[in-house]
Amino acid sequence: MLAGDLYAFQDLLSADEAAVVERVRAFLDDEVVPIANDQWQRAEFPHHLIKRYAGLGIAGREGSSLLNGWLALEMARADASMATFYGVHAGLAMGSITMCGSPAQRERWLPSMAAFEQVGAFALTEPTGGSDVAAGLRTTARREGDEWVLDGAKRWIGNATFADLIVLWARDVEDNQVKGFVVRGDAPGFEATKIDNKIALRTVQNADITLTGVRVPEADRLQNANSFKDTAKVLRQTRSGVAWEAVGVMLASYEIALNYAKERQQFGRPIAKFQLVQDLLVRMLGNVTGSLGMCVRLAQLQDEGKYRDEHSALAKAYCTTRMREVAGWARELLAGNGIVLDYDIGRFVADAEALYSYEGTREINTLIVGRAVTGESAFV
Amino acid sequence: MLAGDLYAFQDLLSADEAAVVERVRAFLDDEVVPIANDQWQRAEFPHHLIKRYAGLGIAGREGSSLLNGWLALEMARADASMATFYGVHAGLAMGSITMCGSPAQRERWLPSMAAFEQVGAFALTEPTGGSDVAAGLRTTARREGDEWVLDGAKRWIGNATFADLIVLWARDVEDNQVKGFVVRGDAPGFEATKIDNKIALRTVQNADITLTGVRVPEADRLQNANSFKDTAKVLRQTRSGVAWEAVGVMLASYEIALNYAKERQQFGRPIAKFQLVQDLLVRMLGNVTGSLGMCVRLAQLQDEGKYRDEHSALAKAYCTTRMREVAGWARELLAGNGIVLDYDIGRFVADAEALYSYEGTREINTLIVGRAVTGESAFV
Amino acid sequence: MLAGDLYAFQDLLSADEAAVVERVRAFLDDEVVPIANDQWQRAEFPHHLIKRYAGLGIAGREGSSLLNGWLALEMARADASMATFYGVHAGLAMGSITMCGSPAQRERWLPSMAAFEQVGAFALTEPTGGSDVAAGLRTTARREGDEWVLDGAKRWIGNATFADLIVLWARDVEDNQVKGFVVRGDAPGFEATKIDNKIALRTVQNADITLTGVRVPEADRLQNANSFKDTAKVLRQTRSGVAWEAVGVMLASYEIALNYAKERQQFGRPIAKFQLVQDLLVRMLGNVTGSLGMCVRLAQLQDEGKYRDEHSALAKAYCTTRMREVAGWARELLAGNGIVLDYDIGRFVADAEALYSYEGTREINTLIVGRAVTGESAFV
Amino acid sequence: MLAGDLYAFQDLLSADEAAVVERVRAFLDDEVVPIANDQWQRAEFPHHLIKRYAGLGIAGREGSSLLNGWLALEMARADASMATFYGVHAGLAMGSITMCGSPAQRERWLPSMAAFEQVGAFALTEPTGGSDVAAGLRTTARREGDEWVLDGAKRWIGNATFADLIVLWARDVEDNQVKGFVVRGDAPGFEATKIDNKIALRTVQNADITLTGVRVPEADRLQNANSFKDTAKVLRQTRSGVAWEAVGVMLASYEIALNYAKERQQFGRPIAKFQLVQDLLVRMLGNVTGSLGMCVRLAQLQDEGKYRDEHSALAKAYCTTRMREVAGWARELLAGNGIVLDYDIGRFVADAEALYSYEGTREINTLIVGRAVTGESAFV
Repeated sequence: MLAGDLYAFQDLLSADEAAVVERVRAFLDDEVVPIANDQWQRAEFPHHLIKRYAGLGIAGREGSSLLNGWLALEMARADASMATFYGVHAGLAMGSITMCGSPAQRERWLPSMAAFEQVGAFALTEPTGGSDVAAGLRTTARREGDEWVLDGAKRWIGNATFADLIVLWARDVEDNQVKGFVVRGDAPGFEATKIDNKIALRTVQNADITLTGVRVPEADRLQNANSFKDTAKVLRQTRSGVAWEAVGVMLASYEIALNYAKERQQFGRPIAKFQLVQDLLVRMLGNVTGSLGMCVRLAQLQDEGKYRDEHSALAKAYCTTRMREVAGWARELLAGNGIVLDYDIGRFVADAEALYSYEGTREINTLIVGRAVTGESAFV
Repeated sequence: MLAGDLYAFQDLLSADEAAVVERVRAFLDDEVVPIANDQWQRAEFPHHLIKRYAGLGIAGREGSSLLNGWLALEMARADASMATFYGVHAGLAMGSITMCGSPAQRERWLPSMAAFEQVGAFALTEPTGGSDVAAGLRTTARREGDEWVLDGAKRWIGNATFADLIVLWARDVEDNQVKGFVVRGDAPGFEATKIDNKIALRTVQNADITLTGVRVPEADRLQNANSFKDTAKVLRQTRSGVAWEAVGVMLASYEIALNYAKERQQFGRPIAKFQLVQDLLVRMLGNVTGSLGMCVRLAQLQDEGKYRDEHSALAKAYCTTRMREVAGWARELLAGNGIVLDYDIGRFVADAEALYSYEGTREINTLIVGRAVTGESAFV
Repeated sequence: MLAGDLYAFQDLLSADEAAVVERVRAFLDDEVVPIANDQWQRAEFPHHLIKRYAGLGIAGREGSSLLNGWLALEMARADASMATFYGVHAGLAMGSITMCGSPAQRERWLPSMAAFEQVGAFALTEPTGGSDVAAGLRTTARREGDEWVLDGAKRWIGNATFADLIVLWARDVEDNQVKGFVVRGDAPGFEATKIDNKIALRTVQNADITLTGVRVPEADRLQNANSFKDTAKVLRQTRSGVAWEAVGVMLASYEIALNYAKERQQFGRPIAKFQLVQDLLVRMLGNVTGSLGMCVRLAQLQDEGKYRDEHSALAKAYCTTRMREVAGWARELLAGNGIVLDYDIGRFVADAEALYSYEGTREINTLIVGRAVTGESAFV
Repeated sequence: MLAGDLYAFQDLLSADEAAVVERVRAFLDDEVVPIANDQWQRAEFPHHLIKRYAGLGIAGREGSSLLNGWLALEMARADASMATFYGVHAGLAMGSITMCGSPAQRERWLPSMAAFEQVGAFALTEPTGGSDVAAGLRTTARREGDEWVLDGAKRWIGNATFADLIVLWARDVEDNQVKGFVVRGDAPGFEATKIDNKIALRTVQNADITLTGVRVPEADRLQNANSFKDTAKVLRQTRSGVAWEAVGVMLASYEIALNYAKERQQFGRPIAKFQLVQDLLVRMLGNVTGSLGMCVRLAQLQDEGKYRDEHSALAKAYCTTRMREVAGWARELLAGNGIVLDYDIGRFVADAEALYSYEGTREINTLIVGRAVTGESAFV
């Protein structure tokens, strides 16, 4: 059981699921954690690990939302960058194909993606449209016979510097609807430039993409993505995933802080013995426990088919807000040592900022929930 | 479904349990809510309702912790004062007898208490010992043959101005252990003076109690309460109850705020359409949902026998902290109208202060959790 | 020096000003504090004190903004209700006449008001227009020869149940501009009904006012109030006053908490010795000191004529937000005793809610500042 | 005037002082800001700038505390790393010599340090003693004739990799008192190892120092540093400096956020027009203004000789807490772009963590204030 799982939420997994979790956790502890700070520092992606993820046999398999969520938690607890790599590939890219592809398309792409023979990316956000992702989407798709011609720009696209398949969203100039395309990373006219100088999720390779007359066959257009509503279904799912990742970051932060508090001596005793230190630890635990309780119920709603946009938007906004507090308190507890990567917490503090903003800022998710509960739209 | 139950936690109740909840909610809506502000304003207890509570058939029955918790939630959502009345009687007083009484004692007192023929109180806190309730307990019990003689003072004792049976804790001068006694409200030497001038839970009748040579037969000493550890078991249970009550206060506050936001017009539109108003509502919802998720898991731990002091202490501290925020945001949303009782939120804001402090302050509950997770005691 | 004035801001007053402050403080300590809780509890106004305020010789006199602010601070430190009574009379009512009256009008009304022979009120807010006070103002004024006929309703009008002169704002049906009128409390058609059931500032007598064909001579129309811009100047001034009052409430809360912490014993020592208690006290002190620093600079800007709406709006929003925290922490520190009026903090906690919302909610003041600094209006 | 200086605090500087400030600001804008992100990214110190600082003519000159504070603000507004470099040299090192050196020592070292011909460092913190800096200080000084022999270790020592003179504190084994020594950077037995892998203030060169039989002549022992009380006087001063730096970070963050909000378009308008964005900006402004008000008063207390440890401890704790909020809100406002160094805010968010913890954590400064106001020590 994880130190921060005071309420033993892990016991809610079935025995089979728990075995998967333990297997993945062991892999993460053995392979990901030991190199996480170094990769982060150098802003490089550990390509040698890709085939190891394939070996886990978890991408694209059937599974409860609770298990999927818990796996996202474990991955983020090890390294939020690698959790993001996985989430982009298995959640956003494979998820889009699963939800919006035809049976033939699913059969064509998913097996090789599940085996990580082809790595996926997901290109929705644009330089000028972050929050206003639907109406503001400017990348165009123009049908020419059996092909589509794509023009425009995308920003922040994770994995895109090395991805084989990029699920990319563009507006059909004909009917003005947003449609989905599977673009190959080596397509002529497709250019992905790595975004440098990041202070968070440095291991994730985000790219600025330009599309100049990129040609995509109609067969590579996701057949069941007819408007932004279909895109939104994918986002709903991935927002839940980020909520789980936020819990993972909290659990890691709590463990780091707790261990430090027990070992670090000041005034002749472990600092864990000071009221002000226990205050920080218990505030962290409260946030972890409340957030986990929320995520667990969210997973149940997903599996029961009662799942709506406002459910995932609330979890994303709430859990990432709590995460930011938790990471900050943990860093505070480590004082000076908290700003050196070697003590681990620094990386989580930094990465928390990215999780807080991606897949919908707190503001946008607030307005999604607000619209649902009041019946009034306040986006503009 | 309650407006604030966005994640449909209520669906976790069994059909039978849900029926009980609906029945109790109807009773509360019909009988308690309509008079709550008036009673509160006058600081008077609605004695005529006592027999109506008996009619609900819920006190002392077997039931899952989830149902018990949810009932506490419903009662607090209607009126935190009446929830406290019920919690003191059915939770603290009957709970003490259930957990610390002999089979004969349980049989002797519980049926008439379940029928509200006798109302209970619980006297632990003393004028000089609030947080330091164990070591600081000064009320004494001296054995004289088949009787005990009790001397001392108690403070804040709810229901005590009219209770028939007061479960009272005193220190045996012989072995220095804290023991429990069932004292009759009309016992010679027992004096209960109502605490006036309260700004919170004004409907609850709290008393300052003085005990001057009060004689209690050995048969009225709780036979299985041998030290403060046994008292602590009762507190563990009731702290969970307060966490649920806090959720009830949050749900009420949210509903009041949401309804007001939809109806109140400013600048030619309902204020629900303003971003700053939706921000308040969604922050409330986040707190409600996280707290409910925590309480639901807590109930599972209780029923599975995995329940420890730190579990209930964390829930009490966390949920009441979140509740205070929620009540404050709701009051803020109602602006000026929020300070008039007629708009309901004022009562919840005020009552939240009492819930925040009773059954262990945030500080004490923090130190209980802190000791459990660090292995270091930081009380002094 | 006040206990909470750690940075000795009081030393910034001139010797003459300090003498006035000390005199007023002594009066407040002697006459107002001893009865504050009782009046509050009974929701009655201490009419016998009105002439005592006259004796202080402070209403309507010339003075620096620093002195005026500090006096508001002192009054609120004693009793926020009485500070409000004074603020409505000397700030809003006399201030309106000073800023918007002709010389003849000032001469006619101000001397008797300075002597409290006539008490003033200020009627702007309406039942349907709280935040949207300008465009939403519906009370009408129709010129008929040398008279005006007023019709409409006002809400929340402090002092209005007993005021002699009510400065009342209505929209001229002719030119659609908001104009100011001095209405007599005994004018036919003027009806003021006390608002009952308040949970804050209970000593303040707020009224719902209805105006049915109330006739006011042109001579009683404020000659220099030609549009809402003139009303806004008065509000700017009074918002600064509320910021100072908020500091007063913080200082009172801090003192109560500090004294309690030194006296209250738990675990064999004063609770002031516990880290968690010192944490609360020092957080309070930080808020007090930052807020005072802001108010002092604001007073300088006022006296230098550099004073703009956004200055007072920011101070009002910031200081009342900090005040709410401080009062809450102080209440927390007193735990159970914090909910009994006798320990004083309960009254300040409750009153803080009214100060937080009156003279512009946090939301409205935020949008006033936001418009000034961004150049974009976000009210609707 | 700076955009975030809404209350025109800068006007409190004399004309001469304002000229110095403008000159320094121009230097910073021209020389420091353009390279700040790049140096930070590479964790390298811009040695070429050292002589440019000398040209400013500000180190070691007489000046009001207000001017000194404002200069710290300006430096941190440009780059918190370079502000720290300057603060260590001119504040901690030169300050120690000024306060604790004999006249001869001041004359010997200060002129060349003022000219930056010799750069200073300050070595107090040790690997095992951060918060417990007094009693926990383990580095020893043993007198041998006219020399002292120093042994031990120091950690986090800024500038120490290249400093010429290190003011170093060690415990005299004879009388157990903490004494100050000026150690040369090239002294045999003195070894400074750069601390790598920092996530904050990366441009500052912090070192782990080991002292192995380092010999220092008695003439290089600070003649007026006889116990830790003298060290504490230096700390008091530098804590005020950090409070000012925190204001500088807030002002920078606010400006970055404001500019971004005006330029960034979403939903067809600048995001500055959204209520949720104005909310963030106005919260920032409140924190800036309150903190500035506190710092200005602190400077007055310093110049009036009324300055005590608790004054600077409160300012340090309060302003850095507020700073952390402000930097976080600014980063939130920039959403994804906030995590790329090129948009500047990322650096300030990261650096804020170091400022929050150095020169006394929030916890330690809280306990310093708490002891002063309650009369009770709660350190252990």
